[in-house]
Amino acid sequence: MNAVEDLKQYLTSRRSEIDAALLAFLPSPPSCPAPVADAMRYSVTAGGKRLRPILCLASAEAVGGDRRAAMPTACALEFIHTYSLIHDDLPAMDDDTLRRGRPTLHVVAGEGMAILAGDGLLTEAFSLMAREPRSDDPALLARKVRIIGIVAAGAGADGMVGGQAIDLACVTPTADGSHPPPLDAGGLRAMHARKTGALIRASATAGAVMGGGSDRQIDAIDRAAAEFGLAFQIIDDVLDVEGASADLGKTAGKDAAAGKPTYPALYGLAASRTMASECLERAASVLQRVDLADSRLLQIGRWIVERSN
Amino acid sequence: MNAVEDLKQYLTSRRSEIDAALLAFLPSPPSCPAPVADAMRYSVTAGGKRLRPILCLASAEAVGGDRRAAMPTACALEFIHTYSLIHDDLPAMDDDTLRRGRPTLHVVAGEGMAILAGDGLLTEAFSLMAREPRSDDPALLARKVRIIGIVAAGAGADGMVGGQAIDLACVTPTADGSHPPPLDAGGLRAMHARKTGALIRASATAGAVMGGGSDRQIDAIDRAAAEFGLAFQIIDDVLDVEGASADLGKTAGKDAAAGKPTYPALYGLAASRTMASECLERAASVLQRVDLADSRLLQIGRWIVERSN
Repeated sequence: MNAVEDLKQYLTSRRSEIDAALLAFLPSPPSCPAPVADAMRYSVTAGGKRLRPILCLASAEAVGGDRRAAMPTACALEFIHTYSLIHDDLPAMDDDTLRRGRPTLHVVAGEGMAILAGDGLLTEAFSLMAREPRSDDPALLARKVRIIGIVAAGAGADGMVGGQAIDLACVTPTADGSHPPPLDAGGLRAMHARKTGALIRASATAGAVMGGGSDRQIDAIDRAAAEFGLAFQIIDDVLDVEGASADLGKTAGKDAAAGKPTYPALYGLAASRTMASECLERAASVLQRVDLADSRLLQIGRWIVERSN
Repeated sequence: MNAVEDLKQYLTSRRSEIDAALLAFLPSPPSCPAPVADAMRYSVTAGGKRLRPILCLASAEAVGGDRRAAMPTACALEFIHTYSLIHDDLPAMDDDTLRRGRPTLHVVAGEGMAILAGDGLLTEAFSLMAREPRSDDPALLARKVRIIGIVAAGAGADGMVGGQAIDLACVTPTADGSHPPPLDAGGLRAMHARKTGALIRASATAGAVMGGGSDRQIDAIDRAAAEFGLAFQIIDDVLDVEGASADLGKTAGKDAAAGKPTYPALYGLAASRTMASECLERAASVLQRVDLADSRLLQIGRWIVERSN
């Protein structure tokens, strides 16, 4: 089997494990009222790459841990990613009607229920990390507190939510009706480090913590994942320019049309792809230093750069 | 000093401690981008009764704990309460323009930023509970994991968010344009147990856990707080009918006008007030059994029933 086929099988197998766990962990009636349970399930089961949970499990395994111990964390991260998409798609935010090839949640369930489903998924993520795996082992409890802190920091106002706020402020006219100045290259990178990078980093780092990694391993994985996050965003921007709606499962060319700063707009398509490859090289070098370059992590990084959707 | 003055001083003193801690724990620039930091601060500093954090601290002290250990939890609960108000006030939900006597956040900062500020506060609540108090003490780590689970369950889709979803579904026309049947008495109570009761219970219970209470004490406080939560909601409904906008700091009579089920609509004003008093009596009896009837908890319960806003 060649490397491409091998990775493909690996990703398919992990995705199917993750999808089953997501379903099992989703709140459901009677403890959860049906309207919001249905709304949460609609968005969580809409598919998607499952990049964050895959990265979480791969990090746990890379440091020698059991991926089952990291599965609740992996699912919590996908809940948070899904909530962020639901809220980001709202009319008051990006106003998207298509996501992963299906109508967005607010289109099918209404804006109010979409807001609540997002809130519910975000809250459930923390419930899940506190609850599972069930154990009174002090070492596990310490890991749980640590990953809850890592994930909350990555998802919160200093991380993903902060990145969304910068993004929103970029396209919102100021009080006098003028438009704020566009972000420069540094500003764009800082925004993406928060908006996309922070949760991707948290996914990898939390997985390494749950897998029992050493501080040196966790730090290296964190730095490599920061490169993955940047590469992911660069390729996202590239695909937004190149792609068609059908392939991406969402409206293409939208960021450029909205006047949002993007990597291709600043650097051109070819240079953007080169930048993404350079991210991978830096990640490889960081992982090499802790003997993790042969783990699945770097293959996942390559998949991020070479993906077509 | 009479009992009324004594409680008044106690509440004022606790509120001032809590307000200072909330300010200290709010994310701020440069780590948090200014637009969302400003939006979160606007809503958190808008005042309010601080019932949930006060209940949290009082529970910690009732079981013999140090309230400083419970202060981060108390602030996290107020962050969650504030986020729920911000999202509940959105045009897609209750569409309120006035809250605590000031324009609601989406009026001053826009809907998108209001959604993000709510998301940020909810996430920060969990970050705070994981982070503070800082310690590697295994007993404290175990308490942290436990309260994060309690608070997430109370705030999430099985709790507060679920209650909001039931409330929203009540006033949303179904696919054929007809209105869903109004909630009966049992349905109303179940909705409020989630929508208001769950977070009030979690506030008291989490405080008791952080204060080092025994399982028997924690259970009694949980049951007493469930009564407080119901009393709180009954009085809220009563004040909504009786009150004027100026006193309540929000639009009065709105629930009744929206055709939402309320206690006064089902039982009348006098019987509703009697029901609230009966909640207190049950709470007193539960607390008596674990020798906590003389703590501040019952006084806080009385304040809930006798308040005028």
